Amino acid sequence: MAEYPTALGASSRERITLLGTDLANEVMGEVGFGELAFWLATQRRPEPGETRVFEAVLAALADHGFTPTAIVTRLTYLSAPDSVQGALAAGLLGGGSRFLGVTEDCGRFLHEQLTGVDLPEDDEGWDALALEVVRAQREARRLVPGLGHHVHKDGDPRTPRLFRIAEEEGLFGPHLSLFAAIGRVHPEVLGRTLPLNGAGVCGAALADLGLPLELLRGFALLARTAGLIGQLAEELRHPVANEIFLSVDLNNRSVPPTPYPNGGPHG
Amino acid sequence: MAEYPTALGASSRERITLLGTDLANEVMGEVGFGELAFWLATQRRPEPGETRVFEAVLAALADHGFTPTAIVTRLTYLSAPDSVQGALAAGLLGGGSRFLGVTEDCGRFLHEQLTGVDLPEDDEGWDALALEVVRAQREARRLVPGLGHHVHKDGDPRTPRLFRIAEEEGLFGPHLSLFAAIGRVHPEVLGRTLPLNGAGVCGAALADLGLPLELLRGFALLARTAGLIGQLAEELRHPVANEIFLSVDLNNRSVPPTPYPNGGPHG
Amino acid sequence: MAEYPTALGASSRERITLLGTDLANEVMGEVGFGELAFWLATQRRPEPGETRVFEAVLAALADHGFTPTAIVTRLTYLSAPDSVQGALAAGLLGGGSRFLGVTEDCGRFLHEQLTGVDLPEDDEGWDALALEVVRAQREARRLVPGLGHHVHKDGDPRTPRLFRIAEEEGLFGPHLSLFAAIGRVHPEVLGRTLPLNGAGVCGAALADLGLPLELLRGFALLARTAGLIGQLAEELRHPVANEIFLSVDLNNRSVPPTPYPNGGPHG
Amino acid sequence: MAEYPTALGASSRERITLLGTDLANEVMGEVGFGELAFWLATQRRPEPGETRVFEAVLAALADHGFTPTAIVTRLTYLSAPDSVQGALAAGLLGGGSRFLGVTEDCGRFLHEQLTGVDLPEDDEGWDALALEVVRAQREARRLVPGLGHHVHKDGDPRTPRLFRIAEEEGLFGPHLSLFAAIGRVHPEVLGRTLPLNGAGVCGAALADLGLPLELLRGFALLARTAGLIGQLAEELRHPVANEIFLSVDLNNRSVPPTPYPNGGPHG
Repeated sequence: MAEYPTALGASSRERITLLGTDLANEVMGEVGFGELAFWLATQRRPEPGETRVFEAVLAALADHGFTPTAIVTRLTYLSAPDSVQGALAAGLLGGGSRFLGVTEDCGRFLHEQLTGVDLPEDDEGWDALALEVVRAQREARRLVPGLGHHVHKDGDPRTPRLFRIAEEEGLFGPHLSLFAAIGRVHPEVLGRTLPLNGAGVCGAALADLGLPLELLRGFALLARTAGLIGQLAEELRHPVANEIFLSVDLNNRSVPPTPYPNGGPHG
Repeated sequence: MAEYPTALGASSRERITLLGTDLANEVMGEVGFGELAFWLATQRRPEPGETRVFEAVLAALADHGFTPTAIVTRLTYLSAPDSVQGALAAGLLGGGSRFLGVTEDCGRFLHEQLTGVDLPEDDEGWDALALEVVRAQREARRLVPGLGHHVHKDGDPRTPRLFRIAEEEGLFGPHLSLFAAIGRVHPEVLGRTLPLNGAGVCGAALADLGLPLELLRGFALLARTAGLIGQLAEELRHPVANEIFLSVDLNNRSVPPTPYPNGGPHG
Repeated sequence: MAEYPTALGASSRERITLLGTDLANEVMGEVGFGELAFWLATQRRPEPGETRVFEAVLAALADHGFTPTAIVTRLTYLSAPDSVQGALAAGLLGGGSRFLGVTEDCGRFLHEQLTGVDLPEDDEGWDALALEVVRAQREARRLVPGLGHHVHKDGDPRTPRLFRIAEEEGLFGPHLSLFAAIGRVHPEVLGRTLPLNGAGVCGAALADLGLPLELLRGFALLARTAGLIGQLAEELRHPVANEIFLSVDLNNRSVPPTPYPNGGPHG
Repeated sequence: MAEYPTALGASSRERITLLGTDLANEVMGEVGFGELAFWLATQRRPEPGETRVFEAVLAALADHGFTPTAIVTRLTYLSAPDSVQGALAAGLLGGGSRFLGVTEDCGRFLHEQLTGVDLPEDDEGWDALALEVVRAQREARRLVPGLGHHVHKDGDPRTPRLFRIAEEEGLFGPHLSLFAAIGRVHPEVLGRTLPLNGAGVCGAALADLGLPLELLRGFALLARTAGLIGQLAEELRHPVANEIFLSVDLNNRSVPPTPYPNGGPHG
């Protein structure tokens, strides 16, 4: 007979446990939501400094205004107001490679660069490693994840702030160190200065916290869930979704069909 | 030209604002994630006591083990491991009327009962109001949302705990008062004692916090997002989804089709 | 030991069955896709006339241009191009009460009106029943589902066409009869002439085909899936999603937060 | 002012067009659903033979019994019965790389192998090309998409059937030719005989039909939407989802948390 082991929630007639603790008495009222999310993902209760860095990351990623995900949630709610879960789920489905994926890409990228490498002991050492990394990416004609921003061209304000918070908490680990060094040395290789963006620094910080790399995107989605609820709350009181819809629909223009070329590569 | 006003995220070249504050300097590192979620939903920064009650609710709802939503997220990840957002979204889509809806139903129900009513000033008064409410439901052959639990038949441990936390923070408002009174008086009407369940008390507490009633389900979904990330993190290290899938598939039994009756009411 | 009976797909080493038939030899190449969808939903192979009416309904509902669902699918694909399933799922999530629900609402409404009623034998009888129905809705201050259209004010071209197809196939049953009668008599009650809309007539036709009322929305979603694939195919070759996104984002206007009123009904 | 061109649905007060035709008079009642789905995706009306091959593919992929996607749709409906769209969307979200992705992977793979190559003129030529392809995959330690099946070890019955249908319709193009040749020659390279699976042959056939390679997964999802509606219809009449849920939940076993290793690669 199959058995399904879990350390997460479990109930008996009298008691509910979560992560081996008593939910009602040891978690409710005692554990903040960011702390709990960290604990659920790692099955390890974080230190206060870890929670502070983690929650700073969640704050950095929660809402960026009228992103595609925010627009999608508002339009879905307009179309199906009976299903809040559908509106939130639809918004989260935009959390893929392009708009919300940089956090995960950057965390994974830094982790790969650090695997099997002796860690430098000072900034000079980090700069040398970063130079290698940026050169290798350039030679392979690949971008460095986390470098560049289409709006904050002179610097993303979230980046120095997260660096400082991590330093204050003694959590400026190898991923952040390499990311910061990339910020210092890349102009030497690329010939121009690009900002270290906020999504990237968040990925570096999450990796330094030891969170599962496969789920870095998941934390961005958790942050965004809070943001999308904010979008819905605003939409309820000051609706704009119908106007967005009409601004598209009223500007549609019928054109003749363009047949897709038939028959494959030799069709 | 259409304009889309928002008090949520906005960016200029140098600065990112959120809710009228400077995201990097006034939010990151300063505001916890539960506090931020409350703020985003209400556009009002909560008091520490409000945050504590709110986070206690989120903790109560984050994970309940192998619920349908948890199973769905694990199976979807098994089937499409390339899309963490899809696995989370699929799990959230189970957050509808049956398994995650009690929180919203209970908050709305209590709110309706309190609308247009002079609020009682003591327990006796609340009991009288609760009696009316339970009697009216019984006469209309409707259930009282939040009353009853299929496992915690002698009492859901989350309920007294959330009552106490709300009292400690001076946030035991009219919704919680009516809910508690329903717990005291319903045996007189129904002839048996049912527990006040945890999902219900969470709805009462969220309503007392003044959160938008239309979005109470949204907060349950936010809590659950953290829980589902925990489910995925556990699945990554101790996978069970394939075994769940096989336990169903290997026990399938082919039966002949049963034609659906044709032709409508008189077909 | 649990067993899960099903008449749908099943496999052995040599054979795949579907609905009690041999998939490879009796379904593939022999059964059209609309016919198969009908068969899967009812476990009864439809007659050719039933398939024709069913496919006419699917055609009527497949695509309506830049609806919220179409915009949502395009924006989600922009944001997460790695997940076609996410883009389609996001679009379908808009298939709720407002934009895609009329089909189901109308089918269910007509069915309720017909339940327990002796069916009229001629148009005069249908008109009398329809008069009762419209009057009762008006007295209850409820709309008649399927009546009215914001664009096709003089008549939705899909309605007479579907009436004719159903007549040609001998499938003009009680739901369509009542719907048509509502179209004839409602001006007498409402004092103005409204069109019978296409979504409504589709619901009536699906109900006359004897399809499960709980799933009428499902058929609208099936039709829409084909439409959304068309939207994605067009987006791939002539992208507009980024321009839609920018048209919203560039017209955002920051406003101060508006605090949501605290404290519930008496807060 | 932005304009959004489209050849898909458009409406005026009197008329609805789709793909440059009159929806009511030229599509409804005249065009089958498979034919319409093809037309929407390619903006080119298919020939009857193309429709037959396309619908055979859809039939092959519509339902495979209690797959993860089917279980997910049933569990989501159990949990949120108010939202059919959510149950279908949740099921489709499992349509990713593992369970539904072979169709797309195989179509793309074959297309890449054919790009820039002179097409062989006889089976001998195809066999030579296939040998090269299988050898190159083996050397790169990569699997050949579409080769192998965990149940149909002696041959997937859908494969020869789809070959035959394509031949009958004169649509056995280069993708199917290469796929068939891979079936003939791979034992010479791999040292054992594997079946050409049904998902793979469907990808080859769709590629030969000239459908957009980026959307091959989309057609598998369209087929599956019909299958998932069938699953819901069966669940409505013969429910098993609650029993599936309980079979997991009642066999859960609480284990202590296993802390995720902290601190990244050198933590």
